[in-house]
Amino acid sequence: MQSVGVPTGTSELFGEAMLRYTHVLSVIENVYRNFGFDPLSTTILEHAQVFNGHHGEGEKLLFNLKDCCGSPLVLRYDLTVPFARYVGDHPNSPIPFKRYQIGQVFRDDEVNRGHFREFTQCDGDMIGVSDLSADADVIRLAYAGLSALGFPNFIVRINHRMIIAAIAKKASLYGSGGRLTIQRAMDYADKVTKAGLDGIRHDLETQGLSGSAVATIIDVLGLTGDFHRKLSELGSILCSEPEGMQGIAEIKEIVSFLPKEIMARIEIDLSLARGADYYTGFILEGVIPGVKVGAVLGGGRYDRLVGNLGGPDLPSVGMAFGLERIITAMTDLNLWQTEHNKRRVLVAPIEKASERLLFAFAGTLRTQGIATDYVPHFGSSEVAVLDYAKRRGFTHMVVKEEHMVVAKPMCCSEG
Amino acid sequence: MQSVGVPTGTSELFGEAMLRYTHVLSVIENVYRNFGFDPLSTTILEHAQVFNGHHGEGEKLLFNLKDCCGSPLVLRYDLTVPFARYVGDHPNSPIPFKRYQIGQVFRDDEVNRGHFREFTQCDGDMIGVSDLSADADVIRLAYAGLSALGFPNFIVRINHRMIIAAIAKKASLYGSGGRLTIQRAMDYADKVTKAGLDGIRHDLETQGLSGSAVATIIDVLGLTGDFHRKLSELGSILCSEPEGMQGIAEIKEIVSFLPKEIMARIEIDLSLARGADYYTGFILEGVIPGVKVGAVLGGGRYDRLVGNLGGPDLPSVGMAFGLERIITAMTDLNLWQTEHNKRRVLVAPIEKASERLLFAFAGTLRTQGIATDYVPHFGSSEVAVLDYAKRRGFTHMVVKEEHMVVAKPMCCSEG
Repeated sequence: MQSVGVPTGTSELFGEAMLRYTHVLSVIENVYRNFGFDPLSTTILEHAQVFNGHHGEGEKLLFNLKDCCGSPLVLRYDLTVPFARYVGDHPNSPIPFKRYQIGQVFRDDEVNRGHFREFTQCDGDMIGVSDLSADADVIRLAYAGLSALGFPNFIVRINHRMIIAAIAKKASLYGSGGRLTIQRAMDYADKVTKAGLDGIRHDLETQGLSGSAVATIIDVLGLTGDFHRKLSELGSILCSEPEGMQGIAEIKEIVSFLPKEIMARIEIDLSLARGADYYTGFILEGVIPGVKVGAVLGGGRYDRLVGNLGGPDLPSVGMAFGLERIITAMTDLNLWQTEHNKRRVLVAPIEKASERLLFAFAGTLRTQGIATDYVPHFGSSEVAVLDYAKRRGFTHMVVKEEHMVVAKPMCCSEG
Repeated sequence: MQSVGVPTGTSELFGEAMLRYTHVLSVIENVYRNFGFDPLSTTILEHAQVFNGHHGEGEKLLFNLKDCCGSPLVLRYDLTVPFARYVGDHPNSPIPFKRYQIGQVFRDDEVNRGHFREFTQCDGDMIGVSDLSADADVIRLAYAGLSALGFPNFIVRINHRMIIAAIAKKASLYGSGGRLTIQRAMDYADKVTKAGLDGIRHDLETQGLSGSAVATIIDVLGLTGDFHRKLSELGSILCSEPEGMQGIAEIKEIVSFLPKEIMARIEIDLSLARGADYYTGFILEGVIPGVKVGAVLGGGRYDRLVGNLGGPDLPSVGMAFGLERIITAMTDLNLWQTEHNKRRVLVAPIEKASERLLFAFAGTLRTQGIATDYVPHFGSSEVAVLDYAKRRGFTHMVVKEEHMVVAKPMCCSEG
């Protein structure tokens, strides 16, 4: 028969791959719970009106459908808009509203651009907190998550949207258009060309910016030195831009909450932009040095998004873990724990006469917490069953009565 | 602002409700793994051709959509068809193929009939096993699942499709049409009218069956006595029907594998039919006495389904847990463990001066594995924070420096 497959831009997981996926989700979920976030599950089907008008260009990517009554529905595009909708639907919820949500989202993208059309997001957000200690708590969450996942080395890059805006002004680019010009050049260089400062310079020049404006921007973005030195030099440059000074003060305030071990992981990266337009304050990204997957987490403060989405007008801050990239990075670094190879036993009688005893034996093993498959393999050879066991990843197998030993199966093979 | 809500027939879960949902899924998942099933995740979006022609009347309930390239897609209707498709797509998979899958499915049903349009299925199936010890293993799985969920009392009802077919013949109803007539009357009485034998009698009479045919059927279905007595009397009645005798022999063979503690939970119920047409052998249902939610699990042997679905022609057996009903039954019986109310601490500085110390204190608690929320509540009174803590289900709270005690928070309230 011919292979049917799944739609392009979607993927399936089986066995070990699925165990890794659920392991990562479970680690992330435990961190969110440890941080006091409450779990939320919203529907995949949403009324079309929920997403219409809230994603700009992104709306072209909505999967639209109609139900049997003709009502227009969409598959959710992200988890942020449904969260804002949920908060709006539950006006008596305690504020701040802190929730995490893990779930699939859908985007009808052109697949040749390498984008996924069905993938998992893992968001944690707090709606209704303006104090910057909450932003510091988000950094602590990023640190806790990457530590719990077992990354021996990682960096949390931070920046501030007000600093980007001030740099734009310094280069005589005014208004949100000016900020967006730089922001997009930075984001493009970061994500697409990966060409760093040279890429940003090239992109800004291509857009027709004057040589002096480009030079100002590149000078600032290229500041070197440690965290505090960079901020101090930036302060000298932006001293005439109140917005920039506020951004610097906010970053100083945020990191003042963090202990040494977290500070050791933080870098201020003035070329960090993040793609989404909605951030208003500090932004962060987590990256794994030596692994070429891009950011494994990202987030920041977005004080106007919830109101813009039709929810209450509440300041918000949050972040999301990038599941696929985390899995790629962990695989590259060989971080998978042996727990996923823990003892699994295949009990497979090859003679009908042993069937009842081996059936009961499988039950005994399971009762002792040993994952045990029972499969009648009558007439097979031990070699054939061994092959089956290896292919399914079993570490031990029992095919005959005389091999029934719980503590140390005699007929075993490392799969 | 006005409430937007979610589409009818779908539901959202937050906080404690979501914790219960994930607890049940995690128990079921552990049981599947303990039984040697491998986890599978397939896509929610499927090519339309995967489902077309395989669900009869059910196809009217498919959610259809088109992607940006005009390709026809559907939202998966169940997890069985995608599993058959997956096995067909991976022809070199080791057989038997045993997988469990937990995931959302979609049906564009008329909502006034009380059906869900987006809900979770939890299926475990083995494709490529004909020996009846596998059927016994499915019963053992049902037993293990309901035990692990903590039901103090439950019954696994079993029956056999060949016995139903033989009863039909005995009543002079021939062919698959005859079997279906009885089967549907039984299923209708079981699920809809809940009128038992009287309901079946009424339904069969309404369909124009002769009085003697109806009497024969009702006599057989009404057999009383314990497991072996019922089977023995049934054997006397059906002795001229080879198909019925095979069904009886298969049930005897299946239960011969089971230990006493499982047999104590099993009842043969000759009026059990199960709705799906595809079962070919033994069928089972799990019910919780005293709880009016219907079956909390169901399954059976379906030897022709995978081939009919376009997969390889392999005998199969499996079952599914009914998540929503399990949650309802556990709630009715008050079976939720205290683990869901385990210590959660709210750290909420009400004075700016305490902010840094309490921020660090929240980190210390989290490091010790205590789920701790940190929320700045400057200017609030202790009473207001207590109200917030109660509403969010926190069992302890710390609002001032002097209350910072790890072992036994001094300022605490049972939420």
